[in-house]
Amino acid sequence: MSLVIIGTIAYDAIETPFGKTEKIVGGAATFAGMAASYLYSDVKLISVIGEDFGDDNLNLLKSKGIDTEGVQIIEGGKSFFWSGRYHNDMNTRDTLVTELNVLADFDPVVPDNYQDCEYLLLGNLTPQVQMATLSRLKTKPKLVVLDTMNFWMDVAMDDLKAVLKKVDVLTINDEEARQLSGEYSLVKAAQIILTMGPKYLIIKKGEHGALLFGDDQVFYAPALPLAEVFDPTGAGDSFAGGFIGYLAKVNTVNFNNMKNAIIYGSALASFCVERFGTESLQCLTQDQIRLRIGQFIALSKFEISE
Amino acid sequence: MSLVIIGTIAYDAIETPFGKTEKIVGGAATFAGMAASYLYSDVKLISVIGEDFGDDNLNLLKSKGIDTEGVQIIEGGKSFFWSGRYHNDMNTRDTLVTELNVLADFDPVVPDNYQDCEYLLLGNLTPQVQMATLSRLKTKPKLVVLDTMNFWMDVAMDDLKAVLKKVDVLTINDEEARQLSGEYSLVKAAQIILTMGPKYLIIKKGEHGALLFGDDQVFYAPALPLAEVFDPTGAGDSFAGGFIGYLAKVNTVNFNNMKNAIIYGSALASFCVERFGTESLQCLTQDQIRLRIGQFIALSKFEISE
Repeated sequence: MSLVIIGTIAYDAIETPFGKTEKIVGGAATFAGMAASYLYSDVKLISVIGEDFGDDNLNLLKSKGIDTEGVQIIEGGKSFFWSGRYHNDMNTRDTLVTELNVLADFDPVVPDNYQDCEYLLLGNLTPQVQMATLSRLKTKPKLVVLDTMNFWMDVAMDDLKAVLKKVDVLTINDEEARQLSGEYSLVKAAQIILTMGPKYLIIKKGEHGALLFGDDQVFYAPALPLAEVFDPTGAGDSFAGGFIGYLAKVNTVNFNNMKNAIIYGSALASFCVERFGTESLQCLTQDQIRLRIGQFIALSKFEISE
Repeated sequence: MSLVIIGTIAYDAIETPFGKTEKIVGGAATFAGMAASYLYSDVKLISVIGEDFGDDNLNLLKSKGIDTEGVQIIEGGKSFFWSGRYHNDMNTRDTLVTELNVLADFDPVVPDNYQDCEYLLLGNLTPQVQMATLSRLKTKPKLVVLDTMNFWMDVAMDDLKAVLKKVDVLTINDEEARQLSGEYSLVKAAQIILTMGPKYLIIKKGEHGALLFGDDQVFYAPALPLAEVFDPTGAGDSFAGGFIGYLAKVNTVNFNNMKNAIIYGSALASFCVERFGTESLQCLTQDQIRLRIGQFIALSKFEISE
């Protein structure tokens, strides 16, 4: 049994009020894969990179026990590159450069030894590629989680709606939930989105936590109040990776486990934003994660007796 | 032992996307008093009204067991009047009319039988009047909670800072915490505000819940996701009333009880916004409150075992 993650592996160049990076490793599959690797041992990536992507960077993923057989290396190609500048509030950003490069013609290959996939994360990517990946798995996974963003709602809504019909969990942010449903109230938005395919909906609200809807229940996960958000890049991907990594570990899909999975996802995301790019996710320890989970418990626990 | 609340008793006229009211009863002391009355039996108000304020309206407060001896009725005077229009997002509003009327010369009187006050809520009002009330109590109450808003930071910051030195708990919203501290990060804002007098700080984030800082701890209370917010007027006051009402009931001030108090405050606020003005708060039952508290528990409870 394995957890398969499809998404971008990329170079990012990031500016925040705290500083500026050269080209560093980024991409949805990178963040999600690294986050998941702390919770589950059999993580496999599907992605595409160019010849410019250094062996060191690929070895970084392998050193986390991540299988990269499904990562195509395009001869003479250049890796996807994104550059952005965050504003002072760290909630908004300008995209400075987007070079699709090898991502433009990405045709996902599912290696034979990925066919044991029971947990599938369709990371943020074109809905067509997400759909192709799903259709190339011979057996439907036990759980399919889809992460997406407003960009795909703007340019490929029909394709997105088609793939939504095939997934179990959708993770989007509050503005995206409003855009997808046409409803301002998140409760009403969730009701509509849950008729579009997913059985569960996670609405990510950044510093305001996350909401889980499904099974006629609602769960409100807090976000850890941080003195400083250093670099938000990859937070959503780390969240998704931590979420599905926890579910693969416990290997039982129900609302209670999803609640815990959201706490783990939030914890991994909270590490992610403390440094540039994947810097935090490169060297976490299980003890650090345990302590962070303890902080989430302390943060939200109360006991009311009648 | 009593819970004393000072604040406005007013007429409001409200427009929301759902409808429009004539002059209805409002004001910080009204909402806070009614909310508190469901949790604690000995609630006493200090306020001022004009002759235009109907007996029926005052009897509404008395019918909740609220003592109104400290509510001055100014002969020939007109009650404070506020009129506002909420935008579609229900988070922003335009003030259409503010008539201070009898509030302009309000000099709070503390009746003798209010001197048993152990819990004091200084509701949203000029800091000078909040300070005068505090100084007219012969014994310092066990707990003083202050609610305020950005308006007083704009026009009376020095007076506000003076009264802050004398209170135990401050409740403000996120933007106000940023304004008061000069820090964008709420964690840093809290650190600064906790040096200004209050031992505890509650940052209200509306639909995103509330944060409690103090005793080197943090608590994140969720807000109940509502399909519709009908009228947000009085939500903050109901929150403050529910908060201090619970603490008066349990009569032990510590961080754990404050966490529960925030859940009760949030529950009372969630009722408040479901109808216009005080309509919801007029006729709650203990069963409804118990059920609502149960929803908050279900909303935020998770159990992670290692």
